[in-house]
Amino acid sequence: MTYCVGMVLDKGLVLMSDTRTNSGVDNISVFRKMFTWSKPGERIISMMTAGNLATTQAVISKLEERTKTPAERNNSLMELPTMFQVAAETGALLRETVKETQESNGARGRGRFTASIILAGQIKGMEPRLFLIYPEGNFIEASFDTPFFQIGETKYGRPIIIRGYDRQMSFEDAVKLLMVSFDSTLKANLSVGLPLDLLVIERDTFERTHEKRIEHTDPYFDAISSSWSDALRNAFHSLPDYSFYQPSETT
Amino acid sequence: MTYCVGMVLDKGLVLMSDTRTNSGVDNISVFRKMFTWSKPGERIISMMTAGNLATTQAVISKLEERTKTPAERNNSLMELPTMFQVAAETGALLRETVKETQESNGARGRGRFTASIILAGQIKGMEPRLFLIYPEGNFIEASFDTPFFQIGETKYGRPIIIRGYDRQMSFEDAVKLLMVSFDSTLKANLSVGLPLDLLVIERDTFERTHEKRIEHTDPYFDAISSSWSDALRNAFHSLPDYSFYQPSETT
Repeated sequence: MTYCVGMVLDKGLVLMSDTRTNSGVDNISVFRKMFTWSKPGERIISMMTAGNLATTQAVISKLEERTKTPAERNNSLMELPTMFQVAAETGALLRETVKETQESNGARGRGRFTASIILAGQIKGMEPRLFLIYPEGNFIEASFDTPFFQIGETKYGRPIIIRGYDRQMSFEDAVKLLMVSFDSTLKANLSVGLPLDLLVIERDTFERTHEKRIEHTDPYFDAISSSWSDALRNAFHSLPDYSFYQPSETT
Repeated sequence: MTYCVGMVLDKGLVLMSDTRTNSGVDNISVFRKMFTWSKPGERIISMMTAGNLATTQAVISKLEERTKTPAERNNSLMELPTMFQVAAETGALLRETVKETQESNGARGRGRFTASIILAGQIKGMEPRLFLIYPEGNFIEASFDTPFFQIGETKYGRPIIIRGYDRQMSFEDAVKLLMVSFDSTLKANLSVGLPLDLLVIERDTFERTHEKRIEHTDPYFDAISSSWSDALRNAFHSLPDYSFYQPSETT
């Protein structure tokens, strides 16, 4: 499994992904799931992937090759004029890659080898944008009402994001929120694991404002993980106490 | 979907279940998923069900009938000498019920009509016990290391239980913890819904110490739900702040 979150804030974009890949519980590896391309001053594009590793690596490699070879069809990430077109091209590539592997595996391939991608970025003259691309190649865009996307093992870490997210929050608070969400997920599910990759993209800078790999030894993640237990316990005790004899009691 | 949690405390057992049943999003009903039998002073047995509603209703009805007709095989819930045997009988009944429906539906039935059951209770002279029964009829028992079971839509509400659970907690705190866990789940998933059923069984009383249906209008649940947002936000802000320039920074 995997856990990746992408968020739109007023100030820009914040992305976090884990790095655990597993095929069974005894075949665990570390693979990067966050990939970033930028042309300073003009555009920055980042993707996070979840699903079949062979599929996602193939898609990323093909995208990477396109940026390095003369574009025959002007379909390189660095040439496409809008984030919408980047999403469409990436979606088409993902769909083709999934379909090829499925078809060459006949009946055994049906429904397998799928993957999804969170795409985030900004191109000069336009707004920062965030997309979720499905294995079928179609995609949705984050909006005012749904300002973040999660892929992979999304459920454990969702309640805290729902409650903690605020469009006007600082990058530092957003990173803190993501760390809590990842910590809750790590605590509950073995298939999501450290290290984590973090990327902050400030609006209109078109560069990696802050990029970091959070390792097992990271003192801040460690502090969050241990103080979150205490903070939650305090929060819990601050709630009104339950009584067996409430006014609303009917029995 | 469904969400049910059963917990063992030093003081006894606490159970909570939702009541939403859905077949598609436009066919939603309220069905009780918690069922309790007791012989005051001698035993109390409670079950919570998740999965195919026809299956779980059939199992509960058959168990119910056995308690009402003279037991030919001494297999009534009210007669069996230990909680282990109650689990074994319930498991066998569940397996048979699932298998019958699957077989009478041929290939179309394969892998469907399954259900699981959380079984909790105490019989005089023995400890309170908690079991999780699988559709295959086998089961596991809660232990010191794993003192609670969840079935149904378990992920959203799991992190808070992992962090808030304490074997020595009061019943009131346990109910509060479950309400927070259910509230997080309700906020994130439409297939889990109010009202909730709550049952507290104090050790060695062999009766319903506290039983309640928590309706949409319940003022305590309402208070928990709204104050939890604030409490979480405060907890979040009490955590150490992230800085782009940490001592551990390597880039």
